[in-house]
Amino acid sequence: MTDRVPILKIGDVLLVSIQTDLEDQMVLDLQEDLSQRIVDTNARGVIIDISALEIVDSFVGRMLATNAAMSRILGSTTIVCGMRPAVAITLVELGLSLNGVRTALNLEQGLALLRNERTAGTARP
Amino acid sequence: MTDRVPILKIGDVLLVSIQTDLEDQMVLDLQEDLSQRIVDTNARGVIIDISALEIVDSFVGRMLATNAAMSRILGSTTIVCGMRPAVAITLVELGLSLNGVRTALNLEQGLALLRNERTAGTARP
Repeated sequence: MTDRVPILKIGDVLLVSIQTDLEDQMVLDLQEDLSQRIVDTNARGVIIDISALEIVDSFVGRMLATNAAMSRILGSTTIVCGMRPAVAITLVELGLSLNGVRTALNLEQGLALLRNERTAGTARP
Repeated sequence: MTDRVPILKIGDVLLVSIQTDLEDQMVLDLQEDLSQRIVDTNARGVIIDISALEIVDSFVGRMLATNAAMSRILGSTTIVCGMRPAVAITLVELGLSLNGVRTALNLEQGLALLRNERTAGTARP
């Protein structure tokens, strides 16, 4: 079993599904892998699905913000999706409002958001 | 942390990304969750991504075959994708040729396979 979080690719979107509590090294590996994959695949968007996470602490919250900032610099949009209501409540109570991180209710809405953004130049009313 | 494998949804395709060694109870839960989700969402296809698995033993091999058979009965097509070359070698050496399980090289090809199948009536030469 590898201790790296797999990065899946759907078209020009990279999909990261986080299913386990992340240890420090896994987070560092993920940041490295993700930035490399964005460059290799010319990805326009990154979706991080956290629907399996029942707890998001400040460490994971920071990781999400760091990944989003990193992707943005590389020219890619990050969307965090699948956050449970309890997680959202906890994050706000912790004072972590995930500034700069875009969110969507689920994977489908995340993909739709990226699609809309791409066609925004013509489709925005 | 939940001990259930999350099932993501993209259109009418369900996506299961297996990232950890599955214990018996997780496999049973996954089968139950997956069949329920197929019925609830009217899913036409199921993609099981095993790119994170370095080892697939006979237990996981059987699980893949069982899930594929179960989905087929419910009217859905299962595609296993992302198998590592070493895993394929081991499976064949174990005598597990995953009969009845359709495979694809990666998630994108799996999604393409499902798309083609859906339009097969008109597109097949």
